[in-house]
Amino acid sequence: MADGQDLTRNEAGIDAALARLQQRFGARVETGAAMREQHGHTVTWIAPQPPDAVIFVESEQEVQDIVRICADTRVPIIPFGTGTSLEGQVNAPAGGISLDFSRMNRILAVHPEDMDVVIQPGVTREALNTHLRDTGLFFPVDPGANASLGGMAATRASGTNAVRYGTMKDNVLALRAVLPSGEVVKTGNRARKSSAGYDLARLIVGSEGTLGLITELTLKLQGIPEAISAATCSFASVEDACNAVILTIQMGLPVARIELLDALSVRGVNAYSKLDLPEAPMLLLEFHGSENSVKEQAQAFGDIAEDFGSQNFAFTTKPEDRSRLWQARHDAYWASLALRPGAKGISTDVCVPVSRLADCVTQAQARAEALGLIAPVVGHVGDGNFHCLPLIMMDDAEEVTRAREFVGWLNDLAISMEGTCTGEHGIGQGKKPYLRGELGQPALDMMGAVKRAVDPLDIFNPGKILPDDA
Amino acid sequence: MADGQDLTRNEAGIDAALARLQQRFGARVETGAAMREQHGHTVTWIAPQPPDAVIFVESEQEVQDIVRICADTRVPIIPFGTGTSLEGQVNAPAGGISLDFSRMNRILAVHPEDMDVVIQPGVTREALNTHLRDTGLFFPVDPGANASLGGMAATRASGTNAVRYGTMKDNVLALRAVLPSGEVVKTGNRARKSSAGYDLARLIVGSEGTLGLITELTLKLQGIPEAISAATCSFASVEDACNAVILTIQMGLPVARIELLDALSVRGVNAYSKLDLPEAPMLLLEFHGSENSVKEQAQAFGDIAEDFGSQNFAFTTKPEDRSRLWQARHDAYWASLALRPGAKGISTDVCVPVSRLADCVTQAQARAEALGLIAPVVGHVGDGNFHCLPLIMMDDAEEVTRAREFVGWLNDLAISMEGTCTGEHGIGQGKKPYLRGELGQPALDMMGAVKRAVDPLDIFNPGKILPDDA
Repeated sequence: MADGQDLTRNEAGIDAALARLQQRFGARVETGAAMREQHGHTVTWIAPQPPDAVIFVESEQEVQDIVRICADTRVPIIPFGTGTSLEGQVNAPAGGISLDFSRMNRILAVHPEDMDVVIQPGVTREALNTHLRDTGLFFPVDPGANASLGGMAATRASGTNAVRYGTMKDNVLALRAVLPSGEVVKTGNRARKSSAGYDLARLIVGSEGTLGLITELTLKLQGIPEAISAATCSFASVEDACNAVILTIQMGLPVARIELLDALSVRGVNAYSKLDLPEAPMLLLEFHGSENSVKEQAQAFGDIAEDFGSQNFAFTTKPEDRSRLWQARHDAYWASLALRPGAKGISTDVCVPVSRLADCVTQAQARAEALGLIAPVVGHVGDGNFHCLPLIMMDDAEEVTRAREFVGWLNDLAISMEGTCTGEHGIGQGKKPYLRGELGQPALDMMGAVKRAVDPLDIFNPGKILPDDA
Repeated sequence: MADGQDLTRNEAGIDAALARLQQRFGARVETGAAMREQHGHTVTWIAPQPPDAVIFVESEQEVQDIVRICADTRVPIIPFGTGTSLEGQVNAPAGGISLDFSRMNRILAVHPEDMDVVIQPGVTREALNTHLRDTGLFFPVDPGANASLGGMAATRASGTNAVRYGTMKDNVLALRAVLPSGEVVKTGNRARKSSAGYDLARLIVGSEGTLGLITELTLKLQGIPEAISAATCSFASVEDACNAVILTIQMGLPVARIELLDALSVRGVNAYSKLDLPEAPMLLLEFHGSENSVKEQAQAFGDIAEDFGSQNFAFTTKPEDRSRLWQARHDAYWASLALRPGAKGISTDVCVPVSRLADCVTQAQARAEALGLIAPVVGHVGDGNFHCLPLIMMDDAEEVTRAREFVGWLNDLAISMEGTCTGEHGIGQGKKPYLRGELGQPALDMMGAVKRAVDPLDIFNPGKILPDDA
């Protein structure tokens, strides 16, 4: 199984911690099997590893109290947002306490003039945007799932509009986190930029709960655009589609989203949503701006698409038509699963320089076919990030082996193309075997040195990110 | 004097290091007084502290060799780019070896399709943009000085167009750096985004040479905009000007630069450049986009300016007129110095949430006046960052004391307004006394833990960033 699955449990410590936690939190220390299983599940092929207990924390002070007890007793703490991470980040390979942040879901302050918001980490992306609706502002990062913003920060999530608005790394102004010492670190104030010392916010964002437990986030907001246009078009090949993407970005068209579905994904969507789109690689775009500019931008893209042979460019600025044009993208995940009823979709997450994207996607398609795998592709192609989703019958060990071979091969391919094995899902347990090949031993050494300096007892989400032999 | 000026020199180690370095590098170990003084100068009131020797490094391997010798002998290494840092970053408070990176100035690869470039750290901003001219691409970060890109990364620099393109933190895709161990860390590949472990690039960017010596940078590039418009206008008060800025950004106008000169700065510019601008707070803007959009944006801003009482809004899309409109901003620094011949300008660098900006600037002006200081203001107001520049006769000890009081007061004021003492200049030696007040002890503890983990011998730029009692 994946690296980091076989950590040793500190049974005596866990017993002691549970006793002390029960003293402090009473019945709020939940040890029922269903609750524990729900907090140690994964949506990949990584086996679930439930924690010993779950506590729904309600304040930063409670988090500090738990951390101090777990530090005393050397017991792991695993933070939990909504459980939508994809690489085993919430698993408890050495047992321990899962801290569920869903009740720390208050929006603490909205500053419309400064276009920022201060929130607790359990606020979800959708809850935040619902709350903001009347301010004319929104939070742009959209990973698809209605994840908690604390979890999104912890995994450095992004999604369809990162090409315009960046990832969580770009949208967290500052944060508060409880450290393994029990102290609370504040990484900055609300200034839009700062050169005040080491960038602790960026160090904690993406650290997957291994350095600090995020208890507060100050996030940048964006103005809801005056107008939005959507566009779609099909291409004869993935290469034509990717070349259109490259030219669009080189020309400086401020595209807000630019997504690729490969022919197999489109076939899935046609079957699932009863559409009759051409079963060919398809781009879906969104532009944000003034009424005039979004029209101008969509038309400028239309010219590019035509230059690369697209014959069915369509665009609209009407909200109802936008949804229709983008339906293929919205349905893509479920439509892909429906291509093979009963199968599990194993999401890959490579990201390569956009000049290598067509080659990477095309090779992935060919390799999947050679391995007898059904593996539709959707991609955030403006960033060079795509998800190839092998559909696997998990009870067929031989097929799982082939899928595993495919995933490893694809990760290595992306790395050989100066890319990464993970654009937005994180390392967790699943991608640990690829980190050394991607960054080299000195980077692992530096990460390990930081980890040991901040968490010398290795109680914060042990067994994640760093390979066991790092 | 500033914190960190009184570190102990390791005389025996320095002698041993010099002997070994001379063996390896011969006459390239430069120990002449003029060369040493040039590398230990500062442009502030911090006293110069020259290193014991200067080596113009020519390769990553040479940097590694020097680091290993200095680690063996426990001797400080201070990286030097162009010497334009403003907080004593290049000073050698415990002596040691200054590594001048100006000969590591090769552009290693330009990838137009991926809109990135791989360079050595000694390449300057202007040299890079000259090299890129024919590609239709440019590197946007512009701190004013023609600094080296390695230095800009090390101090997390930004400048006038950060409001649109971000700071160095946002524009470094990946880097290579020599660590105190002598090993070379690579922080990532050329993918536009990655969730692969701790964000070591962001940890090293802004660490001012205290964690790693940058030997290679992969930078994001932008397309040269099809069209640029410039606009200027005056306001009755700083508050009106700031309110116009707030509304501009809230409306989502994609302003590329938005700069403020206060009335005193404008008076300086009028005298220096023989202009007759109204001696009132003035905004200067630049928009980047298509021909239509930059016109539309400038006009939309014109409407906002009028709403806040401006009566002299002017804009243009012609390059020759743009330079004329922006002349006041280009001349502001030298014009400010000319307000008081013989004086030194002591640049402050606070950054506050934009809602607090008018209050912060107005209080700074009043306080300077009450202290009898001449202190013009220029600001990157889209980010809430401004430089108030007390003009000080450095041989007047009493005046220096008043200026020192002013700077400390202003840093504390910005921090009390949820801002930072440094938006873009860094901490160096000069701002060390303010870091604890801004971030709190746990942040200093975490930075100190990281520093000790990566540089246990404290040989990389000692006496910078962290207070001596941290």
